Amino acid sequence: MIVVMEQGATDEQVQATVKRIESLGLKASVIVGTERTVVAAIGEKREHAKESLESGEGVATVTPISAPYKMASREVRPEPSCITTLDFAAGAGKIGYVAGPCSVESEEQILATARAVKAAGATGLRGGAFKPRTSPYSFQGLKEDGLKMLAAARSETGLAVFTEVMSTEDVDLVARYADVLQVGARNMQNYRLLEAVGRAGKPVLLKRGASATMDEFLLAAEYILNEGNDQVMLCERGIRTFESHTRFTLPLASVTYLHRRTHLPVIIDPSHGTGHTYMVCDMAVAAIAAGADGLIIEVHPDPSTAASDGYQSQTFDEFQRTMNRCKIVADALAGVK
Amino acid sequence: MIVVMEQGATDEQVQATVKRIESLGLKASVIVGTERTVVAAIGEKREHAKESLESGEGVATVTPISAPYKMASREVRPEPSCITTLDFAAGAGKIGYVAGPCSVESEEQILATARAVKAAGATGLRGGAFKPRTSPYSFQGLKEDGLKMLAAARSETGLAVFTEVMSTEDVDLVARYADVLQVGARNMQNYRLLEAVGRAGKPVLLKRGASATMDEFLLAAEYILNEGNDQVMLCERGIRTFESHTRFTLPLASVTYLHRRTHLPVIIDPSHGTGHTYMVCDMAVAAIAAGADGLIIEVHPDPSTAASDGYQSQTFDEFQRTMNRCKIVADALAGVK
Amino acid sequence: MIVVMEQGATDEQVQATVKRIESLGLKASVIVGTERTVVAAIGEKREHAKESLESGEGVATVTPISAPYKMASREVRPEPSCITTLDFAAGAGKIGYVAGPCSVESEEQILATARAVKAAGATGLRGGAFKPRTSPYSFQGLKEDGLKMLAAARSETGLAVFTEVMSTEDVDLVARYADVLQVGARNMQNYRLLEAVGRAGKPVLLKRGASATMDEFLLAAEYILNEGNDQVMLCERGIRTFESHTRFTLPLASVTYLHRRTHLPVIIDPSHGTGHTYMVCDMAVAAIAAGADGLIIEVHPDPSTAASDGYQSQTFDEFQRTMNRCKIVADALAGVK
Amino acid sequence: MIVVMEQGATDEQVQATVKRIESLGLKASVIVGTERTVVAAIGEKREHAKESLESGEGVATVTPISAPYKMASREVRPEPSCITTLDFAAGAGKIGYVAGPCSVESEEQILATARAVKAAGATGLRGGAFKPRTSPYSFQGLKEDGLKMLAAARSETGLAVFTEVMSTEDVDLVARYADVLQVGARNMQNYRLLEAVGRAGKPVLLKRGASATMDEFLLAAEYILNEGNDQVMLCERGIRTFESHTRFTLPLASVTYLHRRTHLPVIIDPSHGTGHTYMVCDMAVAAIAAGADGLIIEVHPDPSTAASDGYQSQTFDEFQRTMNRCKIVADALAGVK
Repeated sequence: MIVVMEQGATDEQVQATVKRIESLGLKASVIVGTERTVVAAIGEKREHAKESLESGEGVATVTPISAPYKMASREVRPEPSCITTLDFAAGAGKIGYVAGPCSVESEEQILATARAVKAAGATGLRGGAFKPRTSPYSFQGLKEDGLKMLAAARSETGLAVFTEVMSTEDVDLVARYADVLQVGARNMQNYRLLEAVGRAGKPVLLKRGASATMDEFLLAAEYILNEGNDQVMLCERGIRTFESHTRFTLPLASVTYLHRRTHLPVIIDPSHGTGHTYMVCDMAVAAIAAGADGLIIEVHPDPSTAASDGYQSQTFDEFQRTMNRCKIVADALAGVK
Repeated sequence: MIVVMEQGATDEQVQATVKRIESLGLKASVIVGTERTVVAAIGEKREHAKESLESGEGVATVTPISAPYKMASREVRPEPSCITTLDFAAGAGKIGYVAGPCSVESEEQILATARAVKAAGATGLRGGAFKPRTSPYSFQGLKEDGLKMLAAARSETGLAVFTEVMSTEDVDLVARYADVLQVGARNMQNYRLLEAVGRAGKPVLLKRGASATMDEFLLAAEYILNEGNDQVMLCERGIRTFESHTRFTLPLASVTYLHRRTHLPVIIDPSHGTGHTYMVCDMAVAAIAAGADGLIIEVHPDPSTAASDGYQSQTFDEFQRTMNRCKIVADALAGVK
Repeated sequence: MIVVMEQGATDEQVQATVKRIESLGLKASVIVGTERTVVAAIGEKREHAKESLESGEGVATVTPISAPYKMASREVRPEPSCITTLDFAAGAGKIGYVAGPCSVESEEQILATARAVKAAGATGLRGGAFKPRTSPYSFQGLKEDGLKMLAAARSETGLAVFTEVMSTEDVDLVARYADVLQVGARNMQNYRLLEAVGRAGKPVLLKRGASATMDEFLLAAEYILNEGNDQVMLCERGIRTFESHTRFTLPLASVTYLHRRTHLPVIIDPSHGTGHTYMVCDMAVAAIAAGADGLIIEVHPDPSTAASDGYQSQTFDEFQRTMNRCKIVADALAGVK
Repeated sequence: MIVVMEQGATDEQVQATVKRIESLGLKASVIVGTERTVVAAIGEKREHAKESLESGEGVATVTPISAPYKMASREVRPEPSCITTLDFAAGAGKIGYVAGPCSVESEEQILATARAVKAAGATGLRGGAFKPRTSPYSFQGLKEDGLKMLAAARSETGLAVFTEVMSTEDVDLVARYADVLQVGARNMQNYRLLEAVGRAGKPVLLKRGASATMDEFLLAAEYILNEGNDQVMLCERGIRTFESHTRFTLPLASVTYLHRRTHLPVIIDPSHGTGHTYMVCDMAVAAIAAGADGLIIEVHPDPSTAASDGYQSQTFDEFQRTMNRCKIVADALAGVK
């Protein structure tokens, strides 16, 4: 860590900083500049070191020089990970396509959707049985009945089932039916839930919180990895900004950034990331062009009657077109350096 | 709701919108403009009506004309609420001052702090026993031992104990010791937790999520109220913006806005809201000047050794000065129209 | 416009709103809802109508139902525009590739770059002669000498010259040398400058301000169009958000949104949009996949010695690879529906 | 500056960094950590040093350790500045109150307003004669006629005239009538304009751009100071964030931050900072409580008929009440430590 002292910091304050660095088991190196003094703290990262140092008197800023996450980092594991379950695979050159309705509404609805997205080339089926809703008065999902319908759709189509778990109490139940446990954006920092899915023995799709920094996102993944589960996929689904013509702002540079920092696969959600059906195809294709390891897209037999998220869901035809365009881009780019 | 059709929407599309409005049990009123057609949907708000309408063909936008929350609204309860427990009171003209360390570290630490903040005029004691930490490698709190220390501090000082509950499993345990259950910013949309604290029979301090809109914030409160618990305080603790010279951006206009929309008291957290000790006093005084119903401030016997948040914690002396300034402003403003 | 009255608005307030609408030459239509009253104002949009109405007593909100810009809109001109100059063309199916250094530094530098980017397939040459710099102490550009070097590079390569004009005083001078006048993000709402470039008789590349909404962006274009210049290209170069791992956040959904709202071509700047050389290629390819009409990319013979923006500039080889990937994606997508 | 090398940077890359530091006339000090190597660059700050270093191979980040502005900094001038003109004074313990309409509309309007705000205690009169408007179709101001009306109001009341200048061409004209030249938020980085007002020999009120960082804001001030004009006031008027219940988000912590970094006075604009009349009084009082050196508030004889900004303008009575509350808070705080 680099400790920058305030201009005018006294010798006593510099010495106190040196002592504190040494008491943390680190080595201190003082550099006297023309305007300020800087103290470098050298050694293996310790817990609380940054916080402890930055509360010292005369200290202006403390800048860590290594990432706060470990198991998620490329430095610990240089090769990209590939997460596989049934026919679904994402990462290390494989692209996983997940599609399905926001909410499971009926067996008919989920079966029809599963058949259609499978035919278009998807390898995963999404569908919410437990729905986190902004309002307590909104539809909250079919719960276990919904999970059973998803399992039935898997039986018929072979698609891997992706579904959200909202609460530690539900992890066992959801894990009995799901192939991939999804942690929603609103729960990205629900640490007890992260630990619980970390122990559930199933792959996890972790969505980025709408205002999470990349370090916070990777540290949330670290909570799961820290429980011994290394089957984690990171999902960028848009961040909250001043823009109002889209529901969220979808930063595709996240793909490139995360690929440099972590070995975990990166999945893009262009449905939540834009909030408008007419934008989904373009952003899906752009995500593939940017190097994403997969997509998760909302598809519904009749979006205009969907119980939730109809305004951002594709029809079967729209999804088919999206898949065609994604695949042609993936193939084209595979052929050039 | 106001449904604005796209320019060039066909008569069939307008008629389909009218039909859908009527099928929701609402009355439709069509207004043909020179550029576009607008359809007003009149009647009591129904679930899904907005979502259902906005997925219709030819529909440009759907704008609700009443707030999505009910029990939290001024329209349902015009008079401001006052939340009281022990000597603490906030709302309807009462100002509640809560102070204490980020984390409970030892009985000595919490007792010394409780005595100091009580002497300075606080009526509530804060202190974390279960700590949500961004990194799995950071200090996670003393758990039940910490709760016991808080209870001991209450026994001696009479201060109401405010402490965070992070998980549904812990609600019963925390509620046995705490006077006010705190829901942190990261859990503001952890709906199962909101329901659980709603059933716990204790006042709740609900912190705004770092990127939550006001509607989302009030709907989170609505989850608690909906369980029959109307002892809810709203805490503004800063939002995430592009600014980096403060940890978060603290929008004090939230006080004025919330007072107009809801009867629930509004508490300001200038410690998290700024992230720098030197800013806390000014923002505390400004919050009182803006009409806040209370403050929650991090205070530590020796911030430079704090296990967490030392860089934004006040010393006892700094807190005393803050209280002096807050009280003189509150008194001065009480005397003018 | 739709005027939503506050809950509890009196009949007098509703009548005053009706009168004010009529005094603006619009027709008023009152809709009495169960909770609130809404008044629709019908007729051609007038100046100040929104502002005048929203300051009325008892008025909650005023929502316009048509776009505030006209000449830029698809509604006025449904077919996409194509801007051409020399061999450069962007829009209506043509993709324009512009590349070059942040600043013109020497004739040698700009000539070498022009040759390299031309060889890689670019049709436009960028290079700053007048540089807007955050600090008054930074390099401010070679001014007219730089313009002459750009003109020399055009003579040899035939590339269209794109260069920034920062001030009304400089418009005539810059227009003598440039093929396309660039208005920078910091000047997007410098209205006198917009008017001046509107009268200069040359195509304009208008960059989006870092916190401009889409309506503000299109209204800035409208200032130029309003002077009789319809040769305007819109450039998305990233917005300011809480993210700090990129210099700005680049929202590629802007392409899809703008294509729906306006006939003007949309150019993406992945260099400023990310601020890191290693991200530029991915975002360039993604932009093409999203349907962008062109790219503007910073390229330098030796980025490590660049006078400005070296950290986000590509080498000649990196640019060549980027062009290869962009073209293969553009070709692949041209072949599928 | 602190140059952090990437993990795995080679010895050659470290040596190249050292050489580059030395070629900039700085001294290099290499610190070999357990995970990374850091190189400190010591000496007086040079132009381009940061940019030059961060484009080096193997360099991860470059962190300056002193502020990029000089003349604006407390380090150069530790005592707070006070800007005075006529009876107006702001800074170093003096609070300046500026009020008036968004736009000058008529002599009657500006005179009535000047009398009312003077009676309430204001020492400055604001009023726009040149109006930067988002749309080319909106009212653009009375121009020189408006300036004459402002001068007439000054003659009668003695209030100092604050008015915006939008363009270098207009600086001389505006400076003939105004006591303080205002640079609007949209022009905060219009560097030619900053230089021109720097040479005009009048105090300047510089508004923060809606997405400007503090460094950018202070560097814009530096452009003015660099022309020899040290009569600069900084105006916080709100930043653009995801919040939509206010027009902008008003961060009052800017007062405390700026007071620590710069000697220049800090003025708060609660009218633009909130965008709603009902919020202006609370935020004005809060600003004074936070230590602001002044306020600039929109006041209109009849906001419901204002040509612009009526929705955020106060009536004379509202302004009188605001002044009463501000003054009682300022007096109360003057009496406590």
